[in-house]
Amino acid sequence: MRATVMFGAGEVRIENVPDSNLIEPTDALVRISRASICGSDLWPYRTLEHSEAGRRMGHEAIGVVEDVGADVRTVKAGDLVVMPFAFSDGTCVFCHEGLQTSCIHGGFFGTGDVDGAQAEAVRVPQADGTLFVLPVGEDDALMPSLLTLSDVMGTGHHAAVVAEVGPGKTAAVVGDGAVGLCGVLAARRLGAEQIIILGRHPDRIALAKEFGATDVVSERGEEAVERVRELTDGFGVHSVLECVGLEQSTLTAIAIARPGGAVGRVGVPQDETMPASLPAFYNNVTVGGGPAPVRAYIEELLPDVLDGRIEPGRVFDRVVGLDGVPDGYRAMAERQSTKVMVRL
Amino acid sequence: MRATVMFGAGEVRIENVPDSNLIEPTDALVRISRASICGSDLWPYRTLEHSEAGRRMGHEAIGVVEDVGADVRTVKAGDLVVMPFAFSDGTCVFCHEGLQTSCIHGGFFGTGDVDGAQAEAVRVPQADGTLFVLPVGEDDALMPSLLTLSDVMGTGHHAAVVAEVGPGKTAAVVGDGAVGLCGVLAARRLGAEQIIILGRHPDRIALAKEFGATDVVSERGEEAVERVRELTDGFGVHSVLECVGLEQSTLTAIAIARPGGAVGRVGVPQDETMPASLPAFYNNVTVGGGPAPVRAYIEELLPDVLDGRIEPGRVFDRVVGLDGVPDGYRAMAERQSTKVMVRL
Repeated sequence: MRATVMFGAGEVRIENVPDSNLIEPTDALVRISRASICGSDLWPYRTLEHSEAGRRMGHEAIGVVEDVGADVRTVKAGDLVVMPFAFSDGTCVFCHEGLQTSCIHGGFFGTGDVDGAQAEAVRVPQADGTLFVLPVGEDDALMPSLLTLSDVMGTGHHAAVVAEVGPGKTAAVVGDGAVGLCGVLAARRLGAEQIIILGRHPDRIALAKEFGATDVVSERGEEAVERVRELTDGFGVHSVLECVGLEQSTLTAIAIARPGGAVGRVGVPQDETMPASLPAFYNNVTVGGGPAPVRAYIEELLPDVLDGRIEPGRVFDRVVGLDGVPDGYRAMAERQSTKVMVRL
Repeated sequence: MRATVMFGAGEVRIENVPDSNLIEPTDALVRISRASICGSDLWPYRTLEHSEAGRRMGHEAIGVVEDVGADVRTVKAGDLVVMPFAFSDGTCVFCHEGLQTSCIHGGFFGTGDVDGAQAEAVRVPQADGTLFVLPVGEDDALMPSLLTLSDVMGTGHHAAVVAEVGPGKTAAVVGDGAVGLCGVLAARRLGAEQIIILGRHPDRIALAKEFGATDVVSERGEEAVERVRELTDGFGVHSVLECVGLEQSTLTAIAIARPGGAVGRVGVPQDETMPASLPAFYNNVTVGGGPAPVRAYIEELLPDVLDGRIEPGRVFDRVVGLDGVPDGYRAMAERQSTKVMVRL
């Protein structure tokens, strides 16, 4: 079969690889219908050291179950399923607490011996806990939004939940990438009264406004902080969704939180330390977040997607076939595209 | 009158200073009955640059109101009052939210033109919002515990609240100073099932056990982390109370939190950045805390103090008069004393 392999920074190729198949009795084999390229795929795209073996890429997908292992109970061949970016057993203490990304028997697609989903098919470990069977057939209009439940919409929602967004509160979203845009949707959905988007790409800002952003701050650094304060009676916002992961964006996120506020981090942090610890401390600002347990959120978000109340699929602004994946990486890295959907 | 002045690291003297008096119509003048030396006073005691003017010290006290300004409504001459370490107007948006340490018109004793409370008297700004009138007279047996409501007991409680301690949960307290010991009391009071104290001073550990600690970890660094994991099925604890403020203690605090757990920081951080940002992120550990709004907590904690259900005053292991304050600093700095009470 064919699959996406990254051999080093900038080196993405579609390769012929051995067919995926069942290994464990808890596995499912899923034929991919739609996959996508994630902002976090761009980190290795910029920095991965060259290797001959390469790395299998992709962790967001919708597909049709082709076969299941002997122990799989809740999914069967023919089911249309969403695959969250992390697999999880659904039964351990952390899964029960809704933190599937810390599952004791879990892990992440595209790491270790678990291959990626930018491919014709993928082996899904812990199929019962991982896969969510969709109550609909393949529907071209709905597929992009359903696909975001595998990562970006659930991740934006996680940022909003951790940042304690609620009715009547003020929120700010740092970053206008696909996750940031979904963060705007999530903040509006949870009742935020004012939603400030921090970003500077005109097309993304336009979409953010359609998603519910009430204010735009395109300055950066200290100027951005000043601007947010002007928009919030000088205090900053209750809830900050940090959707970038860089030092500067984290500094800004903490600085624009009002005393007693909360920052939800979902941008994969690129630093071992977190800056601005002192301002966070003196203002009693809580900083939380991490890999989003999107599996826990599908049930809550799905009805809104099916009813069209939210349309997170609009973050996709380019569709490619599997052969177009390398060019999709290039387009996202050069910021010609916000997010690329792969249609198989 | 006589007051404590710090002229530089290690240079604490009792000086004759101009009498405290009312300046603003919202002030109260309080004659100090009991004050104390705080662990945070030891930071300047170790590092303060020498100056001729010096710094007036002390921010924890109980006293009797001697006089009030024309606008003061809720306290009157003769009232026995607790003075939280921060003053606050009690009416601004942050005071209403219970975050008096971020009061718009607030500040901290011993900073700017607001003098310290290790003195015969102190001017208390924003008296209506700041002072809490005690429903009892001066009672020698109760005074130490009542005095802790001005800082350490409220601070330990804040750490426990931010760390989301609750019934049946596991908690760890990093640091066996007076705040850490009060953190143990607070964690037990809020229902924690297992309370691990991380510390190595035998007398403090003994008190921690009496306060409710179920386990003791006297190792440090990676060994301490291993030990806590052994005590918690390998996962770490739900709630961590960080009561030190150093890089190493913060690293440990984050490392011993279980996935999805929370760290409440109340040790004044000595670093601009927070270490271990990545482990916090990958485990979805929330890090919060800051200066404790102890004013908000007095009402909740006072009944337990009056009934003797908690005895946080036991953290005081030395009593001095005002003249003994310099030696009290020395004793705390050399760890001959956990916490010093000043009796006037």
